[in-house]
Amino acid sequence: MEKIKRKVIGEPLKSSQITHEKFSVFRGLPILSSDAISSVAYACEEILIVLIPVMGILSYKYLIYVTAAIIALLCILIFSYRQTIDSYPKGGGSYIVSRENLGVTPSLLAGASLTTDYILTVAVSSTAGVAAITSAFPALLEFRVPLTLLIITIMTVGNLRGVRESAKLFSVPTYFFLFISLLMIAVGVIKYLIYGYVPVETAQVAQMQNTIGDMTLFLFLRAFAAGCTALTGIEAVSDGVANFKAPATKNAKRVLSLLFLIVVIIFGGVSYLSTIYHTTAGGDRTVISQIAGQVFGQNSLLFFVMQFATTLILIMAANTAFSDFPLLLSFIAKDGFAPRQFAKRGDRLSFSNGIILLAVAAAILVIVFKGENHLMLPLYAIGVFISFTLSQSGMVMRWVRTKAPGWKHKAFINGLGATITFITLIVISIVKFKHGAWVVIILIPSLMLLMKRIRRHYAKVARQLSLDNNYFPVFNSNAAKRFIVPVGALNEAVVKTINYAKCLSDDITAFHASTDEEETAKLKEKWDKYEMGIPLIVREVDYREVVNPLVDFIENGNFRQSKKDMVTVVIPQFNAEKWWGNALHNQTAMFLRSTLLKRRNIAVISVPFIIEDDYDTENMEKVLEEYTDKECFKCRDAEKAQEKKCESEKTEQTDKNSKESN
Amino acid sequence: MEKIKRKVIGEPLKSSQITHEKFSVFRGLPILSSDAISSVAYACEEILIVLIPVMGILSYKYLIYVTAAIIALLCILIFSYRQTIDSYPKGGGSYIVSRENLGVTPSLLAGASLTTDYILTVAVSSTAGVAAITSAFPALLEFRVPLTLLIITIMTVGNLRGVRESAKLFSVPTYFFLFISLLMIAVGVIKYLIYGYVPVETAQVAQMQNTIGDMTLFLFLRAFAAGCTALTGIEAVSDGVANFKAPATKNAKRVLSLLFLIVVIIFGGVSYLSTIYHTTAGGDRTVISQIAGQVFGQNSLLFFVMQFATTLILIMAANTAFSDFPLLLSFIAKDGFAPRQFAKRGDRLSFSNGIILLAVAAAILVIVFKGENHLMLPLYAIGVFISFTLSQSGMVMRWVRTKAPGWKHKAFINGLGATITFITLIVISIVKFKHGAWVVIILIPSLMLLMKRIRRHYAKVARQLSLDNNYFPVFNSNAAKRFIVPVGALNEAVVKTINYAKCLSDDITAFHASTDEEETAKLKEKWDKYEMGIPLIVREVDYREVVNPLVDFIENGNFRQSKKDMVTVVIPQFNAEKWWGNALHNQTAMFLRSTLLKRRNIAVISVPFIIEDDYDTENMEKVLEEYTDKECFKCRDAEKAQEKKCESEKTEQTDKNSKESN
Repeated sequence: MEKIKRKVIGEPLKSSQITHEKFSVFRGLPILSSDAISSVAYACEEILIVLIPVMGILSYKYLIYVTAAIIALLCILIFSYRQTIDSYPKGGGSYIVSRENLGVTPSLLAGASLTTDYILTVAVSSTAGVAAITSAFPALLEFRVPLTLLIITIMTVGNLRGVRESAKLFSVPTYFFLFISLLMIAVGVIKYLIYGYVPVETAQVAQMQNTIGDMTLFLFLRAFAAGCTALTGIEAVSDGVANFKAPATKNAKRVLSLLFLIVVIIFGGVSYLSTIYHTTAGGDRTVISQIAGQVFGQNSLLFFVMQFATTLILIMAANTAFSDFPLLLSFIAKDGFAPRQFAKRGDRLSFSNGIILLAVAAAILVIVFKGENHLMLPLYAIGVFISFTLSQSGMVMRWVRTKAPGWKHKAFINGLGATITFITLIVISIVKFKHGAWVVIILIPSLMLLMKRIRRHYAKVARQLSLDNNYFPVFNSNAAKRFIVPVGALNEAVVKTINYAKCLSDDITAFHASTDEEETAKLKEKWDKYEMGIPLIVREVDYREVVNPLVDFIENGNFRQSKKDMVTVVIPQFNAEKWWGNALHNQTAMFLRSTLLKRRNIAVISVPFIIEDDYDTENMEKVLEEYTDKECFKCRDAEKAQEKKCESEKTEQTDKNSKESN
Repeated sequence: MEKIKRKVIGEPLKSSQITHEKFSVFRGLPILSSDAISSVAYACEEILIVLIPVMGILSYKYLIYVTAAIIALLCILIFSYRQTIDSYPKGGGSYIVSRENLGVTPSLLAGASLTTDYILTVAVSSTAGVAAITSAFPALLEFRVPLTLLIITIMTVGNLRGVRESAKLFSVPTYFFLFISLLMIAVGVIKYLIYGYVPVETAQVAQMQNTIGDMTLFLFLRAFAAGCTALTGIEAVSDGVANFKAPATKNAKRVLSLLFLIVVIIFGGVSYLSTIYHTTAGGDRTVISQIAGQVFGQNSLLFFVMQFATTLILIMAANTAFSDFPLLLSFIAKDGFAPRQFAKRGDRLSFSNGIILLAVAAAILVIVFKGENHLMLPLYAIGVFISFTLSQSGMVMRWVRTKAPGWKHKAFINGLGATITFITLIVISIVKFKHGAWVVIILIPSLMLLMKRIRRHYAKVARQLSLDNNYFPVFNSNAAKRFIVPVGALNEAVVKTINYAKCLSDDITAFHASTDEEETAKLKEKWDKYEMGIPLIVREVDYREVVNPLVDFIENGNFRQSKKDMVTVVIPQFNAEKWWGNALHNQTAMFLRSTLLKRRNIAVISVPFIIEDDYDTENMEKVLEEYTDKECFKCRDAEKAQEKKCESEKTEQTDKNSKESN
């Protein structure tokens, strides 16, 4: 087991080997923005899925309006987050900003929202990545779910190994995607405007001509809500300010501005191409692949390159969650709102427990939703917008409190951001409620409650462990030296245990819970034969277990004088060299130990007895036969002999004349 | 948890409460024969599934021939088993018969075959039971799998509670089914012969008229092999001889004869009705339900009664496996070929682990095969016929060995049985190989190998534990009294642990693996402040774990003089009153303990520290706030203060004229 782990994960790293790589604008942009940039790969499609069934061919007109509205919202967000970067040069995610400025409960709301979000990022991005592959190779469609799980597994292993070191490698896919999508947009526009390319009218598009419904406010809002998935990942930059080279805040702001520019061009460009090339949505082929097919030519090399680039950047986006979520969870765990295991770095200095939790949760989502992306996306945007709103509101509170120069102006900008994102949040919650958003609306408060309960538990523990209580118990030494050794049968392990116990105490009692008279008699006989030299107490038991009689003996007899005394139980502990061997023992020792330790005043000594695997292997076959015959079938043999006797008697009786007898 | 278990399973029973209810012929027949009788509910259908696609309308003619061949085989088996009953008045299943007469490997072959068989019995019978329901209520078809799992769950709970007591109740469904099927056969025959009823010719039957292929030997054998599922469950009677009232063997033989009669009448009758009412096979409606529909009238009360009775008897059949398999497994486990846990009776005196294993395995089969019975049936007959063959061959060996009066005659009968069942086994294996029988052909040897490995392990353990080795280690008392207490931070639990340890030894050392300088400094300070009075050894560690440094300290330093010395590690063991609380601690203690105990010469003392759940609940909210603010956010507060300072300095610099300052 250990060996396999080492092969997959790598050798453990020293604590001192932790690196804090700082990046320039050129390196930081691809790493922090892959999530935001990649969401354009599905945002446009989500808008069309809402519009087309109602508006038909008119959808393309409204697609542009919706895109414009989302870009306007993005613009406000960018200004708002520039201020967060200035104020939190060490990194200001929603959890930290709301914790400092709004209090515990809002911070947990942010924490819970971000948790659901990161899980969805992994599920959605890896699913979308696979969708890009299956658009190019439809034969793979039926392997969608296993492929997605494979990608999640690879990312998990990579992150457990600690992929951070190879951060330089990460910039390649993002720039590659940027280049190829800008190329696609440029060629697409030129082909249409200058060469007058007429889009291929598929059967679906032809059908659209006939369905022209009415545009309603609700429909527009639904489309807007669907498209808001394009805004995910914006926060990553303000989270990662600390990772930039000096001047960190300035560099981070530059990256944020560049990110804005890129999203506007690509999201806007794809929407525009969508309208002129009349893409359909919700089928087996993604919008981007349809555009690429018409712009570059179906089955052209560039078409496949485009699909490949899309897959890569989506995987990068999922990978962002793998590096950000465990870090967030470690903050939450350090504050005591999540199990402490998540605050501990693993063998390879990554927060391995958080990585595994993320992978498992995302994999479950992928399996439950059968790799259907548009079923998961409605769950997505709510968490994003809750954290936007909280983070902006936190900033407003900060300005009001600190009253730093220009605070009114700055509070207005953040206030505007908070208001707009809050309104968007309400819109999304309402229009997507029955499409699955209700799940998130139940899940987030449940997570918050869980976090609070965990914190409460840790507070209780800290209180009880605190030496401020001034409780320093002193135990009765005679009672503690009163040792009990539970004995089933007398064997090497028991002898070793008793001989060890004799080193620590002169007052040892053996205790046997008798479930079988014959076995008990055998034990007593052996006890005398081997001169164990300590008293053996035998209790007849009604049920087939030994733990309760032992506890009863200790607690209810006059075994100890005061309830405050500690007594000591000594147990042999088997340990097979092969791991599966341990499953083959009744595990009575384990059960005994865990039950006894639930009591305040029983200490348990475990004395190891190692079962060797290569013990006497030469004669093993002989041993096997010997034990098989002698030990196991002894009773049955006796029975058989008896039976034979009966039979022969019977035979003698019935056939008195017969000369054959046994 | 415990409470829920008690509600579902019931209060534990005393060992003395075990009952050995003996039954008369009238009570024994339904209990031991439900499996055999119920298999007619699907055997006829399986034959038709093979015949109809090739032979069309001629299938009905050959159905009669196949049925006759199977009944002839049954006849031989009955004679053969009567002799087994005579020889094994305590019960002679294949496992026991082959163990005694053929040796270890054949007995494991029998054990493995029976294991696969019992699992299939549960899966197949409960699926067929549900098929009877869905034939009456087609709307339930899509809930087939959950319904089957529900039935398995109910049987599992029932058997864990110990349904044996209500054995009397069990005779009702079997007699009920007997009565209603005899009625159906009688009415069906009369309706056709006397009233000249003309069967409804469905579209499928009409189509059959056109497909008249050639009868080949292979097809006949395939149909025969398919129908052999009717013979499952015959062995149950010879297994259960011991449960009959005296004269046990005589009563058992009577039951066997009655069983023969019943199977001949019902299986023969259903086959005959099948030919005259032209039933189809492999669709959504079972053969029996088609016959009942035409005989009693579709949607008549008796039609539903027939379906209900079929479901009931199939559930009874599955239940047989629930009482027989755990018993068989307990034999195998007592012989050491299966984990010992299976030889232990649970709270309610049933072999609960075996019951759970059976239920889980059957449930997996149902889920994997999506509740399609004819996919599982090819797996079925192989195990049955392996155990028939072994059991009969074992009897032959027995006669040859014992040379009891008339042994030649008896050996011939058993030999004939063995030969015929062996030939059938070969036929089934060949004709069903690619339909799924290969799974069983791989599975059975794998199970045997596993059983042998388990036995080998137990033999090794027994050998190493045996006092015949004459190895009675005596330990150096000074070394054993050398106690080490691993310490992370100084708290109540550590103080309790050290004070307890002081009762047993004067030579205690505290060991701290330092991963964080600040924490270590705090620990040292507290150590002096609270005057712990024992030395504290601090080791700087490279990796973020404490177990290896501790082991290294013990093993590689001059901590003990001889490698043979036992030393002692004392660990505080947290225990939260609420079970989920234990998941919230880093479990370092558990990991430490299990790693240390893998070494031959380190004993581990666990000192319990109970974390109370209702500790100081009154002030809990206050406590929560207090700890949240003081402890957790201390660092962040310091950072915040620093940051604020920075900012205000910056502000001062930039806006020198500004009068607002913080």
